[in-house]
Amino acid sequence: MNYKLMGRLGAFIVGFEAVFMIPSVILCFADGDVSGGKAFLITVCISALLCLILFLISRGAGKDFYAREGYVSVGLSWIVLSLIGAMPFSISGQIPKYIDALFETVSGFSTTGASIIPSLSALSRGMLYWRSFTHWIGGMGVLVFLLAIVPISGKNEGFTLHLLRAESPGPDVGKLTPKMRSTAAILYANYVVLTALTIITFCIMGMPVFEAVCNGFGTAGTGGFGVLQDSFASYSPAIQVAAGIFMLLFGINFNCYFLILLGKFKAVLKDGELRFYLGTVACATLAIAFNIRHLYGSFGETLRHSFFQVASITTTTGFATTDFDAWPAFSKTILLILMVIGACAGSTGGGIKCARVLILIKGIKRNITQILRPRRVEAVRISGKAIDEKVISNTNSYFAAYIAIMFVSFLLISIDGFSVTTNLSAVLACLNNIGPGLDAVGPAMNYSAFGVFSKIILIFDMLIGRLEIFPILVLFGPSAWKKR
Amino acid sequence: MNYKLMGRLGAFIVGFEAVFMIPSVILCFADGDVSGGKAFLITVCISALLCLILFLISRGAGKDFYAREGYVSVGLSWIVLSLIGAMPFSISGQIPKYIDALFETVSGFSTTGASIIPSLSALSRGMLYWRSFTHWIGGMGVLVFLLAIVPISGKNEGFTLHLLRAESPGPDVGKLTPKMRSTAAILYANYVVLTALTIITFCIMGMPVFEAVCNGFGTAGTGGFGVLQDSFASYSPAIQVAAGIFMLLFGINFNCYFLILLGKFKAVLKDGELRFYLGTVACATLAIAFNIRHLYGSFGETLRHSFFQVASITTTTGFATTDFDAWPAFSKTILLILMVIGACAGSTGGGIKCARVLILIKGIKRNITQILRPRRVEAVRISGKAIDEKVISNTNSYFAAYIAIMFVSFLLISIDGFSVTTNLSAVLACLNNIGPGLDAVGPAMNYSAFGVFSKIILIFDMLIGRLEIFPILVLFGPSAWKKR
Repeated sequence: MNYKLMGRLGAFIVGFEAVFMIPSVILCFADGDVSGGKAFLITVCISALLCLILFLISRGAGKDFYAREGYVSVGLSWIVLSLIGAMPFSISGQIPKYIDALFETVSGFSTTGASIIPSLSALSRGMLYWRSFTHWIGGMGVLVFLLAIVPISGKNEGFTLHLLRAESPGPDVGKLTPKMRSTAAILYANYVVLTALTIITFCIMGMPVFEAVCNGFGTAGTGGFGVLQDSFASYSPAIQVAAGIFMLLFGINFNCYFLILLGKFKAVLKDGELRFYLGTVACATLAIAFNIRHLYGSFGETLRHSFFQVASITTTTGFATTDFDAWPAFSKTILLILMVIGACAGSTGGGIKCARVLILIKGIKRNITQILRPRRVEAVRISGKAIDEKVISNTNSYFAAYIAIMFVSFLLISIDGFSVTTNLSAVLACLNNIGPGLDAVGPAMNYSAFGVFSKIILIFDMLIGRLEIFPILVLFGPSAWKKR
Repeated sequence: MNYKLMGRLGAFIVGFEAVFMIPSVILCFADGDVSGGKAFLITVCISALLCLILFLISRGAGKDFYAREGYVSVGLSWIVLSLIGAMPFSISGQIPKYIDALFETVSGFSTTGASIIPSLSALSRGMLYWRSFTHWIGGMGVLVFLLAIVPISGKNEGFTLHLLRAESPGPDVGKLTPKMRSTAAILYANYVVLTALTIITFCIMGMPVFEAVCNGFGTAGTGGFGVLQDSFASYSPAIQVAAGIFMLLFGINFNCYFLILLGKFKAVLKDGELRFYLGTVACATLAIAFNIRHLYGSFGETLRHSFFQVASITTTTGFATTDFDAWPAFSKTILLILMVIGACAGSTGGGIKCARVLILIKGIKRNITQILRPRRVEAVRISGKAIDEKVISNTNSYFAAYIAIMFVSFLLISIDGFSVTTNLSAVLACLNNIGPGLDAVGPAMNYSAFGVFSKIILIFDMLIGRLEIFPILVLFGPSAWKKR
């Protein structure tokens, strides 16, 4: 293992985390939240010191960097980021227990949006800003961000490739350009522009600037931390519809935007994953609207609530305009299934991803054909292209690991004694980076009632969900640490 | 498609079903249940007529028989068997609605044991016998039975192989002998002996003969239909322990018994699936016993209830000695997970099967190793033997199809508006052929409250579970019916 290069990476990560906290320092002192400001300052100092130490011990790092280093680096980076990111909440006393602060921070970086805070009035604006910013940087990935702006290991393509592959969501990393660093830069540029557009739209529609920035971060990262206690329920219908549309836009594979910039509209329209994604959203919205038609005043209002919740859950954001835990069983079941499917690969959304679901469904179809006609050989095709058999077998293995982790977590948190619905939806909501679940963790509730052990399990679920299982799982396996 | 040979097979199936009903005819008339006896007689006559017609139109059948014919035949056979098997319940009026009678019959043949009967006193002994007998014949398979005793298509090995493969549970069919017909005969001989042993043991321990026979059938087929309203709760502790052990024995791959007869004890002890199965049972029993330690009088009683329920659920039988729906969440979650894992391949039990779970887990492990060391090539090994890559990819596809069917069923039955726990456990209990679920379908409840549409979905789930998905799924696909 190239520990020195991993150390160098670590130095950049904690260094940048310190830089990211500066707006919060300013906001805290400007608002008169002195203890909050101090807490951020202390954390910035600790991060800077750690950054310096890592820099000194990582001098003379070699260039060898393989898949193993990539996965371990990504897993460890996210854990370190979260451990440091939780400190201001805890030091300032605005979230008294460190485990709760860590839960909230991991929930932020992983773009889950599951909260342990009973009342948001306990947090100052500096804290709220940091909480929402973790969504934004976690959405597209901290390492992707670093790779896009700093040549950490010069023109080391292996380094960039293995880190991008380990941090990016989806069954396969799309190479937009021959150079991986340019790919990272293009992704982030797109992300910044789209986020700015979201914030400006919210402002124009009458949302106060601070709320627009925080909600914009939550929308862009498909996170779900809001700044108001009732999430999006008290905003105007126009804002709700706009937020729904923006959530959907951030759930689309960012490669599509690159193709649009290149003028390849046909390729975007033919994209099998995009069609599946939009088709699912349309069907789910209509089915739920029909099912809840007696609950709201007008057809328009019903459709708006249905659309917003579907967009929020399928992109795994987790904002809410109404308490969907009070909806009938059929609607709740649709939402549970959307939680598992999730958004598109290569987006900021979570879940299994539409691309994987498509591969799994088409794999089943092929299997049936092969059972009936053993001699016929057929490829699985998506958007007309044959999918590599290696990707299919990896997808199957991913799915099996996903379900296994789901069941193990479901079992472990059941020790706290909550209902089956609570436990199952809590695991699904964390593993798929959604946020709110049903019953005791429904949109009107929070996760504070769980015990420390369950919180640790759910923290791992959130990281596992965001990093797509393996970067976290390999940390526990001996083969990641053995010498070659 | 060789429709003539399929017709010939159908003739034998309905013919034998008529023969199987004769004990019920006698029991009904002996007990004075004249309407029940007549109902069985009418059904026997209809079956005999159908058998004759099928025989006449299937004269001169060719020998060509491929995988496609095998799957379609098995799927159709089980549907026909169930449609006819439900008639006596419905004609006699002891189960007034035909859809309920069909539900009960499919639940019998598929060895599920999910019931729609609120009170068993509504059924005469002839009906109870038929209900339990369906478990027994469904457990090892009707076609396996036919193949073992009648040379339907002479020495046609393809015919036997494709039918056995489509009806037998597990990722791979074990060939005990070079000739498939002898394999079927050995399996059934073992099954008959073990069933007789169960019934005799129950009798010796003081169970009335009629109850011993019916409960023996339910145990052997890992079905779960009892003859008393409280299942096994009112039997002596000794009977409960014996039933627990016998359920476990019927959940073992029958190839193990063949190996024991050949004196190959070492091979049995080294069997990876058997170790996993018994290990899971031991761990689950202890974990639940610890969790429910305050609920019962003594440690012995606690352990007995825990062991019985674990054995009953993991073998997918569904007998109960206590209302486990009243247990704490942790214990209920363990039972839900055992429902999914199920028994060993090649046994009469349901679920995904231990062999498949092992293949999936080891596949995940290999995937992680390959991610870390892309150049290393490793086989997945169980009991020291390398598993064929084809079997691994089929298992993955099976698992994906299983989860997909689970989610679709879960969604469709949620229209009835029951709780998430009820719906999820109902689907798991039917799809894995267990019987009782939790909440509104818990061991003290029944399935009668569901609507007709949900009952049809659950009927398909039971058949899909017993026949391992594909024989039922192919019936709905156009490629099964197209000409080559």
